[in-house]
Amino acid sequence: MKVTALAPQHQFVHGLASFSKIHPRSNLCRPNATAFHVRMSLREDAPSLAVVGVTGAVGQEFLSVLSDRSFPYSSIKMLASKRSAGKRLTFEDKEYIIEELSADSFSGVDIALFSAGGSISKKFGPIAVNCGSIVVDNSSAFRMDEDVPLVIPEVNPEAMSHIKLGCGKGALIANPNCSTIICLMATTPLHQRAKVLRMVVSTYQAASGAGAAAMEELEQQTREVLEGKQPTCEIFKQQYAFNLFSHNAPVLSNGYNEEEMKLVKETRKIWNNMNVKVTATCIRVPVMRAHAESVNLQFEEPLDEDTARKILKNAPGVVVIDDRASNRFPTPLAVSNKDEVAVGRIRQDVSLDGNYGLDLFVCGDQIRKGAALNAIQIAEMLL
Amino acid sequence: MKVTALAPQHQFVHGLASFSKIHPRSNLCRPNATAFHVRMSLREDAPSLAVVGVTGAVGQEFLSVLSDRSFPYSSIKMLASKRSAGKRLTFEDKEYIIEELSADSFSGVDIALFSAGGSISKKFGPIAVNCGSIVVDNSSAFRMDEDVPLVIPEVNPEAMSHIKLGCGKGALIANPNCSTIICLMATTPLHQRAKVLRMVVSTYQAASGAGAAAMEELEQQTREVLEGKQPTCEIFKQQYAFNLFSHNAPVLSNGYNEEEMKLVKETRKIWNNMNVKVTATCIRVPVMRAHAESVNLQFEEPLDEDTARKILKNAPGVVVIDDRASNRFPTPLAVSNKDEVAVGRIRQDVSLDGNYGLDLFVCGDQIRKGAALNAIQIAEMLL
Repeated sequence: MKVTALAPQHQFVHGLASFSKIHPRSNLCRPNATAFHVRMSLREDAPSLAVVGVTGAVGQEFLSVLSDRSFPYSSIKMLASKRSAGKRLTFEDKEYIIEELSADSFSGVDIALFSAGGSISKKFGPIAVNCGSIVVDNSSAFRMDEDVPLVIPEVNPEAMSHIKLGCGKGALIANPNCSTIICLMATTPLHQRAKVLRMVVSTYQAASGAGAAAMEELEQQTREVLEGKQPTCEIFKQQYAFNLFSHNAPVLSNGYNEEEMKLVKETRKIWNNMNVKVTATCIRVPVMRAHAESVNLQFEEPLDEDTARKILKNAPGVVVIDDRASNRFPTPLAVSNKDEVAVGRIRQDVSLDGNYGLDLFVCGDQIRKGAALNAIQIAEMLL
Repeated sequence: MKVTALAPQHQFVHGLASFSKIHPRSNLCRPNATAFHVRMSLREDAPSLAVVGVTGAVGQEFLSVLSDRSFPYSSIKMLASKRSAGKRLTFEDKEYIIEELSADSFSGVDIALFSAGGSISKKFGPIAVNCGSIVVDNSSAFRMDEDVPLVIPEVNPEAMSHIKLGCGKGALIANPNCSTIICLMATTPLHQRAKVLRMVVSTYQAASGAGAAAMEELEQQTREVLEGKQPTCEIFKQQYAFNLFSHNAPVLSNGYNEEEMKLVKETRKIWNNMNVKVTATCIRVPVMRAHAESVNLQFEEPLDEDTARKILKNAPGVVVIDDRASNRFPTPLAVSNKDEVAVGRIRQDVSLDGNYGLDLFVCGDQIRKGAALNAIQIAEMLL
């Protein structure tokens, strides 16, 4: 998929890719036209899979991405909470019954994709590992554990090179936070060339990061506000429609919220560089499913903007949209349902002397590369 | 007006303050309950006023602010383009007929408030000055002219101390760009204490900065998207509803857009400090009338966050909303139709050693303090 082949910009494409399959009441959530086609990925010699949290926004996107990428599997367990157990789900023309997640769920499972929140991961992740499953965990539960690799396949694949499928030994691999993935997809190729010393990030984060219900609340609130009604505030404590606010993650004693500190700490771990200086301000904006980030970089070595642009054009999983004449740059809408992280507004920082600073604007689909796609790319490296 | 007396957060308050008086078709644009009450501000010994661009978003806000603040005037000319000439307008219980702006408009006018775009200011500003009017210009036409003061009354009132009303001599005073005003309201008190060396700003800018028609387009697009229709893109070239994009100002050869370079250059002029380093990334977000800014500051002298918070609590025109426990910080909605700039997320920058850095999140009403209020505060200093 190339960003040059994007849907027309005015087309409405920011809904959940496939969420409407089980939540048809959301009008904004359009099925992805490419999802759930019949693929030849169901075969006996392939690994057995489990999807934990299959009814959630990321869980549904796991299925969409597995199908899009013809990920090979011999079987797939659809796991969720008791509330969803027993419901039916169609995936690649086969009907599945959603099973309740339990300690017995992981027998014979080779790869388990988790996206059901930190407490579920903490409880069932180790159980799955004990059963011999390799867990790719989308929560923050194990990200900072020293013996758990935190992986963006394009950035630090070596961190998981010791983990092998088919040796009967379970393992945990953590998927980084969405904001970290999107930021590092764009900044790592530049870091590799000129070494980032300091990074100042301001985010513009979509509703999807708070789950499918948050996306529905944004839609509902917007309708209510347009009708002159009081907006319904259940997921968030304040009006989200036509508004924005500091990220809803708890604020720590240093004044940063947890989302911001994930960017600080995960960057250090993924780059294996405890000295890189990062500060971040994380803000929720009324956008459905793709994050944007304004990134200011200071380098150890000089790096001019033309070289940076060339590096980014050749970076895997990155597209450059940087058309100054027509004022065309990355937007959340243009990257929605897309695999690539888009980078633009690449320019020499006028506040730093010499070629030691760059400003960038980065957009990436929060559910896809920020979560499901990255996890499945991790799983692909196990094959 | 104190921000502690804000309307409940869930209440919908982001419409134009008074725009609906002449554009009743916009549902999102509610009249400000306090506007247009009868005041004792019409009196013979007061200056005669002219409002240029009275039908625009800022023009309407000029009237609202004049009334709110009981600005004294002996007469007021309502000036606009030919298209609006002849229309009637009620202000403080008196009916006015909108007149077409012409070279003859300024005879006997003491203070002319301009907000009709740069080309109108360039043409008619000098004409008004020649007629002996003091022009407070909201456009960017004269901001960087060496002999034109660029003024935020709370920040650099001394810059206009040589301009006097009633001496028969006309003059130009420029109102800074909205993003600059909002940023410097929060950062100047800290700069005065610890000297800002470098500032990295990322903006979250409302529709209102592009005028009333842009606000209407955002509303219309949002309705269309919710109805599954193609959004109408007339003011902007791309979908704005549930999306965001790099500011629509032209991009210059250094890769910055004009909006960003205004922040860079106007800061230097207002602080009278050619050495301050500023970089900015300006983004439009789907919010109606208040801007937000994520600001990272590096200081020459150490400044801890508690001291910074105390300084900001005592700063004129600034309110601190910084409740970490309940995750309550400034939002565009909470400052809409408010005079004060709100500051929160005040914290020591973890990416800088010692107390030499702070991160802030700032919100301010773009039409009010970002434009009309600041201009009328300038006019008040002439009284």
